[in-house]
Amino acid sequence: MQLQTNSLTLPDPLPLDSGEELHNVRIAFETYGELAPDKSNAILLCHALTGDQFVASEHPVTGKPGWWERMVGPGKPIDTDRFHIICANVIGSCMGSTGPASDADDGTPYGMRFPVLTIRDMVRGLVGLLDQLEISQLHAVVGGSMGGMQALSLAANWPNRAGRVLAIATTARHSAQNIAFHEVGRQAIMADPNWAKGDYYAGDTSPDAGLAVARMAAHITYLSEEGLTGKFGRRLQDRSEKTFGFDADFQVESYLRYQGSGFTRRFDANSYLYITRAMDYFDIAEEHGGLLADAFAGTQARFCLVSFDSDWLYPTAESRHVVHALNAAGAPVSFVELSAPFGHDSFLLDVPALDRVVKGFLHD
Amino acid sequence: MQLQTNSLTLPDPLPLDSGEELHNVRIAFETYGELAPDKSNAILLCHALTGDQFVASEHPVTGKPGWWERMVGPGKPIDTDRFHIICANVIGSCMGSTGPASDADDGTPYGMRFPVLTIRDMVRGLVGLLDQLEISQLHAVVGGSMGGMQALSLAANWPNRAGRVLAIATTARHSAQNIAFHEVGRQAIMADPNWAKGDYYAGDTSPDAGLAVARMAAHITYLSEEGLTGKFGRRLQDRSEKTFGFDADFQVESYLRYQGSGFTRRFDANSYLYITRAMDYFDIAEEHGGLLADAFAGTQARFCLVSFDSDWLYPTAESRHVVHALNAAGAPVSFVELSAPFGHDSFLLDVPALDRVVKGFLHD
Repeated sequence: MQLQTNSLTLPDPLPLDSGEELHNVRIAFETYGELAPDKSNAILLCHALTGDQFVASEHPVTGKPGWWERMVGPGKPIDTDRFHIICANVIGSCMGSTGPASDADDGTPYGMRFPVLTIRDMVRGLVGLLDQLEISQLHAVVGGSMGGMQALSLAANWPNRAGRVLAIATTARHSAQNIAFHEVGRQAIMADPNWAKGDYYAGDTSPDAGLAVARMAAHITYLSEEGLTGKFGRRLQDRSEKTFGFDADFQVESYLRYQGSGFTRRFDANSYLYITRAMDYFDIAEEHGGLLADAFAGTQARFCLVSFDSDWLYPTAESRHVVHALNAAGAPVSFVELSAPFGHDSFLLDVPALDRVVKGFLHD
Repeated sequence: MQLQTNSLTLPDPLPLDSGEELHNVRIAFETYGELAPDKSNAILLCHALTGDQFVASEHPVTGKPGWWERMVGPGKPIDTDRFHIICANVIGSCMGSTGPASDADDGTPYGMRFPVLTIRDMVRGLVGLLDQLEISQLHAVVGGSMGGMQALSLAANWPNRAGRVLAIATTARHSAQNIAFHEVGRQAIMADPNWAKGDYYAGDTSPDAGLAVARMAAHITYLSEEGLTGKFGRRLQDRSEKTFGFDADFQVESYLRYQGSGFTRRFDANSYLYITRAMDYFDIAEEHGGLLADAFAGTQARFCLVSFDSDWLYPTAESRHVVHALNAAGAPVSFVELSAPFGHDSFLLDVPALDRVVKGFLHD
């Protein structure tokens, strides 16, 4: 797959939390809006688990609009008339940055020889990109879900790099329940014989069935019970009676199958393994001696945390935990729980109150 | 597998909601406590999705204690010194009652030729058993989760058959979210090449990998986030450091894998497909013209509904919906939401308040 996207190779090997090093690290990225001559208007936007750099431009594989078009663009809350937005594909992913599908030094794809990464490793790659772009100080780092983890990790580990940190629908450590859901997804992929221990790139088959199941399970966790009931309820799919069979009788079944199969066309199963693993390993406090407040000691940044009342994957308590730590660290922080019916996916959807919060925090 | 259990064959074909008929229906069951000479002390106990008739006796496959030993026995809340407890394996299951692994008329296993069932069909089988046992009137029908669905279905469709109806952690219709989780499980099974469109009984392999993934996904929904955090948190499994690999580093991963693999030793994948389908189809109101209150019009039974505050699979609102319908139908009903940290599984676990509710309702 030859993608139309910007990319560069980091000049130095990237040291990883595992102790390994990653060589010839390629970072694929998109930018939106002009960089000011004094480079003071750059915003690093971090994507979520299955996201990518195509924030506000057409996805080259699916042809769909960018995943945050509602938020990023001229006159929008993240205003490209004013800011220079940088969004890079995280390492471990599959949209142009180095990941398990990339060639290792021996010229064949890494597969499961790719090193296990952490969120901090991903951010290390992003900081490497910023270094190459000669952007020493960001106006802000912004992200939702895994993107929010990266924003918090950047603030904790590169404390002078961003003036503002906006972390939406996220956490400072992955919960047992979330590890459990990720493990189900990984087991679904690994149970697929086409996974072939990750060594499937040369053949005609890939573990699409397993990856689709993983995506279906995850997708439920991105929504809310209320949202699913409102959107689908028990309505039947293109039929007036139940079939007494195993077809997708219900709209919600049809929708989930569509989500699962569509996902396999744009995402690599091994990347799914590696990125979920990085999220499971995420625990900022653990990285900083056990106390979350210590992770943010001495930060000069201003923080804004946003949660959604229907998000049961990263519930408000997770954001509040971060806010308490930031308070203890003496950092300026604002925090709001927004009401929205869409569950975790609220950060991507039509929640006007979020637009106002984002705009206010970045512009004031 | 030759099970040590009681069983009988219904004399007549069983008509099903699909319009089909099931022939030579075998019902496997266990009883506990003596039946009174006037047969007034019988309680029908209905099991959940992956449950069976071994309520208070050792499971013949796993060797584990019965699944409700804490509730059923001499002097226990469901007191076998006083009551005669009947628990039968539902049709569609795999512990001795007719299901997809049973031989069809042609002498080979049904597999996916088995007819799709409803919860009402299962109850029809149970009523057939009661007829054979010449028990015309139950002291009570009792069940949790899918067992509660059966209890409500019996009350709605055979209104004179039970004097008391105790439905725990259940619903009168399966929600979109619950259909979605079941669909993930079914897709996981069907994605396993060893499923072979359900025709795997003659071979040496069965879709264990897919069934294990289905069980893992479902198992998360039976617990609560609070319970998982309390039980496992982010603790590592038999190691002091993360391995930077895909082993079960975290206790919660190890636990889930164990739940998944253990389940495949005692349960049939096709039964899992059929029983989840029956639950998805469950909607008592739909069976009775669309209004739930109409389903219970003219009932002479007393009802008790119990929910748990940490149960997000069958949340309290589902029980309240049933209670409102029973109120509208003029039926005597008591309702309590109990506080317990175990999520949906609370009905099986150490919740002393539940013991008191069950004992009080059955004995007063």
